[in-house]
Amino acid sequence: MQKLLDLRVPDHGVSLQQLIHDCATTLKYQVKTGHPRFFNQLSCGLDLVSMAGEWLTATANTNMFTYEIAPVFILMENVVLTHMREIIGSEWKNGDSILAPGGSLSNLYAFLAARHKMFPNYKEKGIATIQGQLVIFTSDQSHYSIKSCASVCGLGTDNCVMVPSDDNGRMISSELEKLVIERKNRGHIPFFVSATSGTTVLGAFDPINEVADICDKYGMWLHVDAAWGGGLLLSKKYRHPRLSGVERAQSVTWNPHKLMGALLQCSTVHFKEDNLLMSCNQMSADYLFMQDKLYDVKYDTGDKVIQCGRHNDIFKLWLQWRAKGDDGFEKHMDRLMELTEYLVRRIKEQPDKFYLIMEPEMVNVSFWYIPTRLRTMPHNKHREQELGKMCPVLKARMMQAGTLMVGYQPDDRRPNFFRNIISSAAVTEKDVDFLLSEMDRLGHDL
Amino acid sequence: MQKLLDLRVPDHGVSLQQLIHDCATTLKYQVKTGHPRFFNQLSCGLDLVSMAGEWLTATANTNMFTYEIAPVFILMENVVLTHMREIIGSEWKNGDSILAPGGSLSNLYAFLAARHKMFPNYKEKGIATIQGQLVIFTSDQSHYSIKSCASVCGLGTDNCVMVPSDDNGRMISSELEKLVIERKNRGHIPFFVSATSGTTVLGAFDPINEVADICDKYGMWLHVDAAWGGGLLLSKKYRHPRLSGVERAQSVTWNPHKLMGALLQCSTVHFKEDNLLMSCNQMSADYLFMQDKLYDVKYDTGDKVIQCGRHNDIFKLWLQWRAKGDDGFEKHMDRLMELTEYLVRRIKEQPDKFYLIMEPEMVNVSFWYIPTRLRTMPHNKHREQELGKMCPVLKARMMQAGTLMVGYQPDDRRPNFFRNIISSAAVTEKDVDFLLSEMDRLGHDL
Repeated sequence: MQKLLDLRVPDHGVSLQQLIHDCATTLKYQVKTGHPRFFNQLSCGLDLVSMAGEWLTATANTNMFTYEIAPVFILMENVVLTHMREIIGSEWKNGDSILAPGGSLSNLYAFLAARHKMFPNYKEKGIATIQGQLVIFTSDQSHYSIKSCASVCGLGTDNCVMVPSDDNGRMISSELEKLVIERKNRGHIPFFVSATSGTTVLGAFDPINEVADICDKYGMWLHVDAAWGGGLLLSKKYRHPRLSGVERAQSVTWNPHKLMGALLQCSTVHFKEDNLLMSCNQMSADYLFMQDKLYDVKYDTGDKVIQCGRHNDIFKLWLQWRAKGDDGFEKHMDRLMELTEYLVRRIKEQPDKFYLIMEPEMVNVSFWYIPTRLRTMPHNKHREQELGKMCPVLKARMMQAGTLMVGYQPDDRRPNFFRNIISSAAVTEKDVDFLLSEMDRLGHDL
Repeated sequence: MQKLLDLRVPDHGVSLQQLIHDCATTLKYQVKTGHPRFFNQLSCGLDLVSMAGEWLTATANTNMFTYEIAPVFILMENVVLTHMREIIGSEWKNGDSILAPGGSLSNLYAFLAARHKMFPNYKEKGIATIQGQLVIFTSDQSHYSIKSCASVCGLGTDNCVMVPSDDNGRMISSELEKLVIERKNRGHIPFFVSATSGTTVLGAFDPINEVADICDKYGMWLHVDAAWGGGLLLSKKYRHPRLSGVERAQSVTWNPHKLMGALLQCSTVHFKEDNLLMSCNQMSADYLFMQDKLYDVKYDTGDKVIQCGRHNDIFKLWLQWRAKGDDGFEKHMDRLMELTEYLVRRIKEQPDKFYLIMEPEMVNVSFWYIPTRLRTMPHNKHREQELGKMCPVLKARMMQAGTLMVGYQPDDRRPNFFRNIISSAAVTEKDVDFLLSEMDRLGHDL
């Protein structure tokens, strides 16, 4: 790749013609994430309305910290975030929300708010005010950003307890309770649980109501990381039972740049309680967020966040929502799930060539491709090892052919397996058929 | 504003015609940050090449965590960030860097790397491993994100010590040493100093060499927050003495979306030592960052950062650098400084109407506008109070007239005063003249 491209930043500027050539070359060699046969990431596809929104966002080139310089966009944030909170639960209407650069930082906001709510002196005095070790809990299938919070914020990753999950990747709530009690017995302070709605690999949904009962019992903050699964809140058909109980959480992460197809980056975090973000994160920078302005300064957001400047991530989402409406998003969700069901059916119809690892709860489909030489072998640990070894080889062939991209990874229970994601509106049944036939074409002789 | 706009997100999608109308209305009522008479923020202007870059970025809609899905952009990051490190200092070539969503998070990365370098067990064990209170130091003029690090990371803001600055807003290094000794005498552990190169309000530069000597003496990490002033590294004329000694730091924040005019967001943080970001932030998410890939996985960046997904902030900067070259950026810096010198000269030529608060080191010009009734009053604390009271009123008139935007704020030494910023390439001497005459037109009767 380095040989194909001229990437130097020069002493003297290049010509306009060269710049246009640079742009063309870049697009040529970049991965086509909007292509209907790109099944590789949680964020796939290219929503044209969202893209138009991002173009206008670039043109308006402003920062989101004050109403003064982003009046229209700040009002849009209020409208869209309030609407999203109402979708989470009716009692969330008067809560608060913020757009953050990615789900990991959204989760960090939730962690910080929880710590501030429970230990208000922490902000000024730090950990010295607390007698005992703070501990947080999440499932062993959760996104690593929860563990990262424990590292960043000074608890240490040893104090992010990974709760075992069942065979479908859902947190086992009785194990959560056991681990909470164990830590309490050691004199620790369990205070935060992150349940995942839509795990990264398997697309599993933790049982929120069961986890919420335990949080109530032991006085812990419940966060729901629905960065991935949150989109299903928009579907009457698929919301329950997956996200049942989400309204009982204190905070929820939900990334429109994933299932909803908004352009990267677009991540939100929501709080049932208002004013918490402000009291948690405000550093009283009076020289930036003055109170004697022409307008109502409650619209300034800069003091609520741990960023100062903040990219405008709202316009593309607002415009997309205007274009689709709630029912357009609902149809989009139902269609993605329907296509996933189609893929599962097609896999089951070809048991010699494909092995479905589990029935999916979401658009993540976990499976192995079986090359000719392994088709008659009984399925056991040994065959799994063999199938796992082939994933990187088959993936490399896909990338060399340039016809298809599907991700693979190992997990705690098994070696490498493929995880297919359908989150692009461009995908059709034909692309699903192609996915399977192309894997077979590229891999049958492995 | 709410009455002028239809901001609802509807049940059913609106028509394409309505969407186009929405876009037009949004642009109409948004603040024109690219206008040559927008002097309000550190990020002003609209570089058209950078904008074209952002449009292509949106179209390519990808994530920066792996080489696999962002091969061209990842290589561009390597080229540009290496070049920026070489500009900081020749011994930085083999260091490491990352693009972060804003200067505040860049500073947080520096803090985390410093803590990890000095206390490698902290990541797993947390604060429990450390005997004594960690303390960080920065000037009382620094950006509030440094204080925020102390809050987020569990030190508490009381353990972010604000070192007094001189009349020009520069950290007093003898005061720093005094405060370090004081904390050491209390059994605390001073470990991190953030010097500012270009403070937010006054544009002051801390004396880096003096601060570096103290850091050497007491074994503390030196971070230079050059989010704002970093652009001057590109100018032979203005780099010294302002940024002299920057190469002695262990980490440097530098935001191309400020003085260099890259579109929002574009912030970088640089480290002299390689591998520190990885060992500090890696959470070993093998299921995302597998080692058995087709390509050299050292190009994957996802495990180096506290985000997971990361917006592509490099293409617009790379394209802009191709267009300008090093010498184009140097000319841009020299021109901004030259215009600032012009503004200062024009202010001094009208001492009845304007009061220059200090000779600027950068493009921040601090001054009061003097309305007719105060022109004969001797300049003392009482007049300063009167001048300060008028800033919000004059600003409100600017915004109602829609002809001009200049920011104001108080500081520790004085009430509200105007801070003018010239960081847009669109500004000319005529706009500077207009700035002063328009303030007089709008404010003379106050």
